[in-house]
Amino acid sequence: MNKDAITRYPINEAARKRWSPRAFRDQPVEPEKLISLFEAARWAASGGNVQPWRFIVGLRPDATWTRIFEALDQGNQEWNKNVPVLMVAVGARISPFDGKVSPVFQYDTGQAVSSLSIEAIHQGLHVHQMGGFSGEKIHAAFEIPDDYLAIAVIACGYMGDPENLSEKLKKREFLPRTRKPLEEFVFSGKFGEAMEMVKW
Amino acid sequence: MNKDAITRYPINEAARKRWSPRAFRDQPVEPEKLISLFEAARWAASGGNVQPWRFIVGLRPDATWTRIFEALDQGNQEWNKNVPVLMVAVGARISPFDGKVSPVFQYDTGQAVSSLSIEAIHQGLHVHQMGGFSGEKIHAAFEIPDDYLAIAVIACGYMGDPENLSEKLKKREFLPRTRKPLEEFVFSGKFGEAMEMVKW
Repeated sequence: MNKDAITRYPINEAARKRWSPRAFRDQPVEPEKLISLFEAARWAASGGNVQPWRFIVGLRPDATWTRIFEALDQGNQEWNKNVPVLMVAVGARISPFDGKVSPVFQYDTGQAVSSLSIEAIHQGLHVHQMGGFSGEKIHAAFEIPDDYLAIAVIACGYMGDPENLSEKLKKREFLPRTRKPLEEFVFSGKFGEAMEMVKW
Repeated sequence: MNKDAITRYPINEAARKRWSPRAFRDQPVEPEKLISLFEAARWAASGGNVQPWRFIVGLRPDATWTRIFEALDQGNQEWNKNVPVLMVAVGARISPFDGKVSPVFQYDTGQAVSSLSIEAIHQGLHVHQMGGFSGEKIHAAFEIPDDYLAIAVIACGYMGDPENLSEKLKKREFLPRTRKPLEEFVFSGKFGEAMEMVKW
């Protein structure tokens, strides 16, 4: 299955090959590979080097994995049953500089998870991020303090055989990846006006 | 100058080499390289594939560049005078699914910028993100609608000679890069409890 990003000019191979499958093998992920993923997240950029990202990591079938799985929406549970690693990406709301809510804690947490996702491809793995989960359940299960926010659940493992998915999900797995053209999000002069060089 | 990330297990070269310099050459960035950066951002992951990121791009000395530069804090202006590309990363607040503020628009915008930053390294470029700017000035200068939020300004170009920086900034340029150890942000069982495998 070739789901490579189609681009006008080349991009690095990992970014080209990164996508979010639903078919995962139940094969466990080697600890050293997982640690490389966390190292990639660790070295991401953040405002004032605050590093607001935290991860709660479950390895199937441990208690952490089970509690994350139980917090997933039913639609996500369907294809996560055999995923070997489930993680929660948590952001630290409060800036250590002024004690107020940081304007970039979510943005920076996203940067770390993006870096983790690219490293996953380098390690032969894939991740699939989900917003479909109960934040309340996650916060309760792991006693996450109010100063922190569970933002996404991340499935991680080796890509599996789409034939093992339900008919509906199998169809989605084979759909081509799509994105907005550059003209719709790269502007110059005024917000909404396409930059000349990206017009194609 | 070697500022490579020091990691327990290897990570991909671009993530290892990515850091945020203040010394940039005034040499312009080739359009095809810039487009590769936007393509890398374009193919980032986002919740429901909403792609909430937008970029406003100034090429020195055009009007867009000048208006972004003028919105920077004085401390940032000092080292941005010769930076060839200044961009604003903007997030679309409203989810197209329910018309409410998206819980992940900042997170997803961060993912796209992280991907752009990694691609920059592949292109021989560096980026340096800044929170030190006037959002009010940026929103006014580019007529950014209220449904969008200017989150970060991004300097981009070829790394320059630190000798051209002020004494104070030169010192910062040579400081080693630092990050929290994995034990402080990779948890299992309960929030705040280090995962066994990351203890070192």
